[in-house]
Amino acid sequence: MKPLRILVRAVAIALAALPFAPGHAEDEASPVLGGKIPSGYRDWKLISVAHEEGNLNDLRAVLGNDVAIAAYREGKLPLPDGAIVARLAWSYVPSEENNKAFGRQQSFVAGSATNVQFMVKDSKKYVATGGWGFAQFDDGKPARVVAHDCFACHVPAKAQDYLFTHYAP
Amino acid sequence: MKPLRILVRAVAIALAALPFAPGHAEDEASPVLGGKIPSGYRDWKLISVAHEEGNLNDLRAVLGNDVAIAAYREGKLPLPDGAIVARLAWSYVPSEENNKAFGRQQSFVAGSATNVQFMVKDSKKYVATGGWGFAQFDDGKPARVVAHDCFACHVPAKAQDYLFTHYAP
Repeated sequence: MKPLRILVRAVAIALAALPFAPGHAEDEASPVLGGKIPSGYRDWKLISVAHEEGNLNDLRAVLGNDVAIAAYREGKLPLPDGAIVARLAWSYVPSEENNKAFGRQQSFVAGSATNVQFMVKDSKKYVATGGWGFAQFDDGKPARVVAHDCFACHVPAKAQDYLFTHYAP
Repeated sequence: MKPLRILVRAVAIALAALPFAPGHAEDEASPVLGGKIPSGYRDWKLISVAHEEGNLNDLRAVLGNDVAIAAYREGKLPLPDGAIVARLAWSYVPSEENNKAFGRQQSFVAGSATNVQFMVKDSKKYVATGGWGFAQFDDGKPARVVAHDCFACHVPAKAQDYLFTHYAP
């Protein structure tokens, strides 16, 4: 083969080996938020709290950046571009010291952090997933960066802009 | 009686009618925070979350003003004067929409607000109660403003500056 033909074949083989064809679905595979936890997210304001039983068995807080909080408080859905919602979760742990003070077994508190998930609103970038990019970080490292993976579970909340969490007054 | 004697007696009667003798125990009776919810407390940063079973049956978030958060993050106890800790609580409600998405009964979310409690650090003003003034607000109105009432339950946490809540990373 001529050198040019060798090069073309090599490129074709390399492209076929990529998990996604170039030119589409690029957003799905690229890490949301550049694969980095947004600095200062732990300072964001509280949207609400929840407890999940089952395999998750956690206590969780949902925080929002300023864009998200403002829209949540005004009851404006869908959230505008630039909104970011963070879901923090911690293991669900009985508190012996609290129970002693109460005189009965009744208190459950946040143990160690399990993971942090983010939803990032960019209606142009994430068209295929309701305008949301999804990311999960375990111990600060990106763990789930393919949007469709998380999106599927959020589809039932489509009428609320794919957000399960309501603002707690 | 001479006018001066009448005045003295009138003052004595008026003082006896006061719920507390003047000059002591005044702080106990005066509403902490002037009897008003601190403006902007809902914007404070998150310390942690918890779930209480039993009669309380709530989900709760503990927020701190900037002084409180800085000390919490640095692990500095006791908290300095000016620190305010807010405990928000909401009724513990199963979420049918979340359970549908998960395909099982496992999700509990924040319902309506029950009450908001504050601890205000002023080591000079609240000497008798570990340096903390306590207040509870129901529907925005002061409900418990006598410090000793709340303080008694916080005594078991004396080694942690009377704070049960630990910072959630």
